[in-house]
This record gives sequence, C-alpha cells and structure tokens, in this order.
Amino acid sequence: MKFPDQIEEFWRKREEQNERVFRYAGLTTKRFFSLDTRVYRENGILPARMKELMGLVASLVLRCDDCIRYHIVRCYEQGVRDEELEEALSIALVVGGSITIPHLRRAYEDWEALKTAQSGE
Amino acid sequence: MKFPDQIEEFWRKREEQNERVFRYAGLTTKRFFSLDTRVYRENGILPARMKELMGLVASLVLRCDDCIRYHIVRCYEQGVRDEELEEALSIALVVGGSITIPHLRRAYEDWEALKTAQSGE
Amino acid sequence: MKFPDQIEEFWRKREEQNERVFRYAGLTTKRFFSLDTRVYRENGILPARMKELMGLVASLVLRCDDCIRYHIVRCYEQGVRDEELEEALSIALVVGGSITIPHLRRAYEDWEALKTAQSGE
Amino acid sequence: MKFPDQIEEFWRKREEQNERVFRYAGLTTKRFFSLDTRVYRENGILPARMKELMGLVASLVLRCDDCIRYHIVRCYEQGVRDEELEEALSIALVVGGSITIPHLRRAYEDWEALKTAQSGE
Amino acid sequence: MKFPDQIEEFWRKREEQNERVFRYAGLTTKRFFSLDTRVYRENGILPARMKELMGLVASLVLRCDDCIRYHIVRCYEQGVRDEELEEALSIALVVGGSITIPHLRRAYEDWEALKTAQSGE
Amino acid sequence: MKFPDQIEEFWRKREEQNERVFRYAGLTTKRFFSLDTRVYRENGILPARMKELMGLVASLVLRCDDCIRYHIVRCYEQGVRDEELEEALSIALVVGGSITIPHLRRAYEDWEALKTAQSGE
Repeated sequence: MKFPDQIEEFWRKREEQNERVFRYAGLTTKRFFSLDTRVYRENGILPARMKELMGLVASLVLRCDDCIRYHIVRCYEQGVRDEELEEALSIALVVGGSITIPHLRRAYEDWEALKTAQSGE
Repeated sequence: MKFPDQIEEFWRKREEQNERVFRYAGLTTKRFFSLDTRVYRENGILPARMKELMGLVASLVLRCDDCIRYHIVRCYEQGVRDEELEEALSIALVVGGSITIPHLRRAYEDWEALKTAQSGE
Repeated sequence: MKFPDQIEEFWRKREEQNERVFRYAGLTTKRFFSLDTRVYRENGILPARMKELMGLVASLVLRCDDCIRYHIVRCYEQGVRDEELEEALSIALVVGGSITIPHLRRAYEDWEALKTAQSGE
Repeated sequence: MKFPDQIEEFWRKREEQNERVFRYAGLTTKRFFSLDTRVYRENGILPARMKELMGLVASLVLRCDDCIRYHIVRCYEQGVRDEELEEALSIALVVGGSITIPHLRRAYEDWEALKTAQSGE
Repeated sequence: MKFPDQIEEFWRKREEQNERVFRYAGLTTKRFFSLDTRVYRENGILPARMKELMGLVASLVLRCDDCIRYHIVRCYEQGVRDEELEEALSIALVVGGSITIPHLRRAYEDWEALKTAQSGE
Repeated sequence: MKFPDQIEEFWRKREEQNERVFRYAGLTTKRFFSLDTRVYRENGILPARMKELMGLVASLVLRCDDCIRYHIVRCYEQGVRDEELEEALSIALVVGGSITIPHLRRAYEDWEALKTAQSGE
C-alpha cells in the first residue's frame, strides 16, 4: 500500500519514538502497549473494520490528532468505505460537539490523501 | 420489553426533563436534539447495532454515566450480544484508561440488570 | 431570595465542605479560592450577569454538575432572563456536543425550580 | 479587514478543509455545521459580541487552538475591547486551570497580531 | 483498619461490581485490570506513598469521584500525612482549575472521615 | 545547563508570550500565574522533585504537550532519575489510557534530548 508523504513520515517518526519508549519502558508500559495492539485485532466477534471505526470515534471525541490519523490509516487498510467512515464520524461529531470539527477536517484530509496516493499508483 | 426499576425510573425522568428543555429551547437546541436522534438511526450503511456500540464507546471514554446507560439500553434493544458489548467496551477501556473503570462497572451492572429483568418475564 | 430545598441543601453542604477545605488548605489553595470568587465580580467592563453566563458555559462544556448548579443560582440572582440563559446554554450545547445533554437537562431543572420557589413566595 | 499572514493562511486552509468535509458529509454533518454557524448569530437577546466571548471561553477551557483562533478573530471583528477579552479569558483561566495557559498565550499572540495588522494598514 | 460507613459501602459495592466485570471480561480487560493494580505497587524506585499521591492528582484533574475516593483511601493506608496530601491536592487544583473544586471538597470529606473513623476505634 | 535547540526555542518563545500575557493581564491572571509558580516550589513537605513529577502526571493525563515539555525540563533540572520518570509516566499511561501515548512518546523524546545535550557538553 502506498502512503502519502505526510503519513509515511508520521509512521516513520512513530516507529522511531516507539523504539525510544521501549528502551525506557518498564513491564507495565510494555504490557500496555501490547494491549493497545491486541484490542483492535479480530479475535472474537466484531470485524476488525468495526473495531477500527470504534477506535476512530473514541479518538475523535477525545480530540487526539495522532490517534485519529492512526485509525484513519488502519480503517483505510481494512477497506472501510466512504459511507461507513462518514457515518462513524458523524456520530463522533454529534457526541463531541463543534470542538471536534478541526480534527474532523484533518481526518477527511488524511482520508482523501490516502485515496489519492492509492489511485496514483 | 421489560426494564429493571432503576432504568424505568431513569427513562421516566429523562422524558420529563426533555419536555422541560423543549419548553425553553430555541431553534438551535431543538435541531440539535433532532440530530442526536437521527445520527443513530439506520439510514445508510452501518447497522444500528454498530452505531449504538459507537455511541457507547464515545460515552465511555468521555465518562458520562447517563449517556452510557442510554446506549446500554439501546444496545440491548438492538440485540447486541455479550461478546460484541465486551469487545467494544474493552476498546473504550484501553483508549480511555483506568479512569473509565468506575463507568465500565456501572455499564455491566445495567447490562446484567436488563438481562435479568428480561429473563424474569 | 427563596431557594428550592435541593438547592438550599446544596448550598449548606457546600459551606460545610468549604470550611473543611480551609482547615486543611495551604496558602496556594486559599489564594485560589479567593481568585475563584474574585473573577466573577463586576469590577471592570463586563456585567456580572455576562460573567456568570460565561462561567455557566464553561461549566457545561466541562460537564461539572455542581459548577453548573452554582452558576445557575448565581445567574438567577443576577437577574438573567430565560432567553439569555437559553442562548448561552445553546452555545455550550453546540460546542460540547450531545455528551452535555444530561447536564443541560439538570440545568433547566434547577432553573425552573428556582423560578417556582420564587413565585411561590 | 486586514489579517496577519498566519491567520490569513489559517482561514484559507479552513475553507479548503470545509469544502472537503462537505463533499463527504451526510445530512447530519451538514446540519451540524449549519447549527454551528447559527448559534453565534445575533438573532435574539445576547449581543453577538457576548456570544463570541462565550464561544471563546468554551474553546479555552476545552483547549482547542483552532477554535480559540477562530473566536479570537470573530471577537476582533465584532469590536470586542481589550478589557472585555481579558475578563473573559481570566474566567476561562480560573475555571480551566494552568493547563489552559499555553492556549491563553497563543490567544493573546493572535489578538495582538490582529491589532498590529490593522494599525499597519 | 476501620473505615467510615460510606467508604465501607463503596468498597463492598466495588468488589461486587468487579466480580461482575470479570464474568464478562475478555483477556484484554482482565490484563488491563491487572496493570491497574500493578502500577501503584512499590516495585521499583518510587515509594508506594508517592505513587498513590500521583494517582490521586491524576484522578482529581480528570475529575473522577470514585477514583479520587479510591486513592484517598489508599493514601491513608500508606500513611500519607495531611501536609503531603494538601500539597499534592493543591498541585491538582492549580493544574485543573476551579472545575476540580467540587471533587476537592469531597476528597477532604473522605480524608477527614477516615481519620475520624480511625481515632474513634 | 545546556538545552537542546527545540527546548531552547520553546523556552524563549514561552518568555516572549508570557511578557505579552502580562501586558494584557488583570489582577486575577497575574495572581494565577504567581500561584502556578508557587505550587511547585519546595516550601513544605514534598520534595520539589516529587512535585514536578506530579505536575508531569497531571499534564500527561490532560494531554497538554507544552505542559509536559515544561515539566520534563523541570524534572530534569531537579535531578529526577530515569526510573522515577518511568514509574510516574506509567501511572499516567494506565490512568489516562492509550490516548496519552502520542504525548508519552514526545515526553521521552524531550527527556532523551535533554540527556544528550548534557552529555555532549
């Protein structure tokens, strides 16, 4: 999968930072990071696609740009459709209010950049 | 559907309060309330069940007991299964951290009360 | 001014709790409490009525029931009109989203209780 | 009105992002955006100036830089005076605590940039 | 150690609710609960007393009454002194602002109740 | 003490912004800023090192990058050890959840940059 430059760079930086965290991390932090990966994995009843959308909704109402970008990429990789994304984001918008709008704008910007990068292959 | 007493009372109080809000409400507030109903309706691609779970995840990470209770009831009415609920709540727990645990406890308490009230019919 | 019972009790409890805080409080806490009183006082350009409405908007988007109740009472004492209250609360609702609705319901409940207690004198 | 470069650029980007959101947006999102414009309009009892200050207070306690910048510009356009701004921001500071200080700093930075851009016409 | 009635009841309810959560919980939730216990344990360099104070500060700025009560009890069990508690709470108050005050009041109420229950043995 | 460039620049900018705030600030804002300095000072029972760690934990769970950076620098100046920092940050991570991870990454990035700048003297 081809990523747009800003997301490629985000991912590279994230890896580098994670390695640093792990050099300092004690057992609790390491285990937490492992739960954070595990919880979105399809290993039960909900499709991974729905889990990523739930992670996205949570990230939008809590207004964390890095977390939104991460889940936008993961949703894209899971084949989430435009309409599914829109419906999930509109729930987050109504629950979280206008204070989420700047993050909503960036979510769609990343989403479109992912689609453009792909179609340009 | 039969509700446990505390939820019956919650719903009655909620109706009474909503009527009062509407006596004061201007156009913006009225329209907002209508969006809040509309956004969880199945009128596109996501099943209502998934929308309610997303509303629940958002409510848990934002730690609003009334909102959690509302979506727990709605999830129950939509036929959400125990495993689906658990997977959604575990995402909210990991995203939102231990600060969400008291609300998680009350979410399962309501969930079980709903099942008990039903089976007791 | 005549307060409804639940608000009378809230105020009494608040006084009792404040006295306890002050028995433990160091200089920083004491000074903070004094700023918290000072900031809503009319001592500059904004009318106290507007300051209380701003405190109410902040309390609603941050979803603190005690703070909302406090500012609802203060708004009432300052002679805020129904329409002014409604416009301020609708801003808070749009900014803060549906997660604020349970608090909005309680805000209007207190407001009406204050008016009823008054008219019943 | 003449805007400083960083705000000119912010506004341009905002427009571009809004257009993208609207290409994806369903009915709920579109209606929400329309409420978000409507709620600050002077169409009742509170002066638009006070409404913008309330939006600013809400944005500061919720700590959203883009929202703060937006309301700072709108306050400026509405002719809010330095003293009014300061009193509103000090309420937000006391309610929201020292965690709001970095945003408070940027609020005054934008405010001064707006005044400088204007006087330099 | 002798607990005041409201805290005795809180602890009993908490146990009952935790058991219910564990009946539903999948692996992620169970592991999360175990991390939540582990992280405050003295197993490294910081004294357990300081860890509990940190948990208390985090709970106060995030405004979770159940979490505050839990850490207040744990601080008391760890022999935290009045002055230590006050200094930690004043940091939380300044960081989190006046919106934390209702929780601060309840924190001191619990603290005093614990001391009274003890001295009354 | 030698600071890495990004922190040097952060500090310079912060000073400049504070001066601007003080040109606009009324008495409440000025007093608040003074409390914010005072509260971390060692003037009672808790070591300044522990107070800075508490400020850091509060800043991480509230997810304020500027505040985190400020306390990371202050912790470093106070001689906080790697293990102390890690234990405090792991409490914040568990309380605040995965939504704090992007800030945790940047906290360790600053921490390492401070150590590198120092060892490079």
